[in-house]
Amino acid sequence: MAGEKQQPEAELVLLDFWVSPFGQRCRIALAEKGLAYEYSEQELLGAKSDLLLRSNPVHKKVPVLLHGGRPVCESLVILAYLDGAFPDSYALLPFDPYARARARFWAAYTDKVYEAGTRLWKLKGDARAQARDEIVRVLGNLDAELGDKKFFGGDVFGLVDVALVPFVPWLPSYERYGELSVEETAPRLPAWARRCAERESVAKTLYPPEKVDEFITLLKKVYGIE
Amino acid sequence: MAGEKQQPEAELVLLDFWVSPFGQRCRIALAEKGLAYEYSEQELLGAKSDLLLRSNPVHKKVPVLLHGGRPVCESLVILAYLDGAFPDSYALLPFDPYARARARFWAAYTDKVYEAGTRLWKLKGDARAQARDEIVRVLGNLDAELGDKKFFGGDVFGLVDVALVPFVPWLPSYERYGELSVEETAPRLPAWARRCAERESVAKTLYPPEKVDEFITLLKKVYGIE
Repeated sequence: MAGEKQQPEAELVLLDFWVSPFGQRCRIALAEKGLAYEYSEQELLGAKSDLLLRSNPVHKKVPVLLHGGRPVCESLVILAYLDGAFPDSYALLPFDPYARARARFWAAYTDKVYEAGTRLWKLKGDARAQARDEIVRVLGNLDAELGDKKFFGGDVFGLVDVALVPFVPWLPSYERYGELSVEETAPRLPAWARRCAERESVAKTLYPPEKVDEFITLLKKVYGIE
Repeated sequence: MAGEKQQPEAELVLLDFWVSPFGQRCRIALAEKGLAYEYSEQELLGAKSDLLLRSNPVHKKVPVLLHGGRPVCESLVILAYLDGAFPDSYALLPFDPYARARARFWAAYTDKVYEAGTRLWKLKGDARAQARDEIVRVLGNLDAELGDKKFFGGDVFGLVDVALVPFVPWLPSYERYGELSVEETAPRLPAWARRCAERESVAKTLYPPEKVDEFITLLKKVYGIE
């Protein structure tokens, strides 16, 4: 029969969108784990695919990981799932229960970089000033948690690093819209970001800040923001 | 030396506030697991205790679980931590990785009941109407996920049940502020709530809806909402 393929055939399929930092978390994790997968680029602005709507009927968003056809949604859930489903692969979460809890707490916290950052370029006036205060506080807290460690979990690249690093190429845009300096706000993050970028999983997944900035400009046009 | 106790002495201490549904998640989990702990009621409206500020400097919120003095913050992180740190106790998360991911997804989703519910009583007009649409959608999705199962995970009371059940006493207030019917929106939830309430862990932790409603009225006064 003619027509589009209704169901992908690979064991692991990632429904994603190239610049999505949440999807990039999954791509970095899959690369660290050495797991082969089919990448399925989704439309962001056009009609959503039947496969996406069927796989994530609640949020209707990327990323979705299909494993043997069964969907897992939400990037941090996907990361934990990959650790559980492929226990012999590179572990993102530490094994000690307290270290795990700490990693989970901070991984969830990194979402606030994106939330506040989005408000920076979407909003104006007082709302933008509030978002600026928020992102300065969030980056400061992340910097303090990193401290003088190599990675968030210590010497080993792990969950919090994977969760946070896709936001790095967004920071120059946030600096411009928020009139802030990451170097001043979170002085240890830039060196951490460079250490992450030395990993092939990160280097091959992230796009340069200019590409992210063009994408933000496109979104502003789509949303009718001056 | 005179003065307040600077550090609690019990192995497990829960910093909490009586009506907090997020704290109640932890109390229900601790009860299911049969773990003894010191309950430390915190001020909601007065000055926050040094212990709370020191234990949760990022969010400055209850619940916080102290285990041997080390803080774990965020209710769903606490629940997963208790499973990991007390592996011989009643398990909240299933062991199968896919079932775990599904439980994590839906447990996080239950937060939306509270988020939309809070907007229902805090906001007016269009914003309240939006919150009403949102909570109707959220309750409908939860009802569909429950389906004809006894509990969200199947036959066994688990993570999603623990996460959602503390919001049950808030529903009558949400029904009134949102002019909606839970029975119509999520017809299978009331029987599920009754099954949960048969558990001692739940029955002894939750307060009657009237107490919750009085608390909402108090909060409205504090926030200056008519």
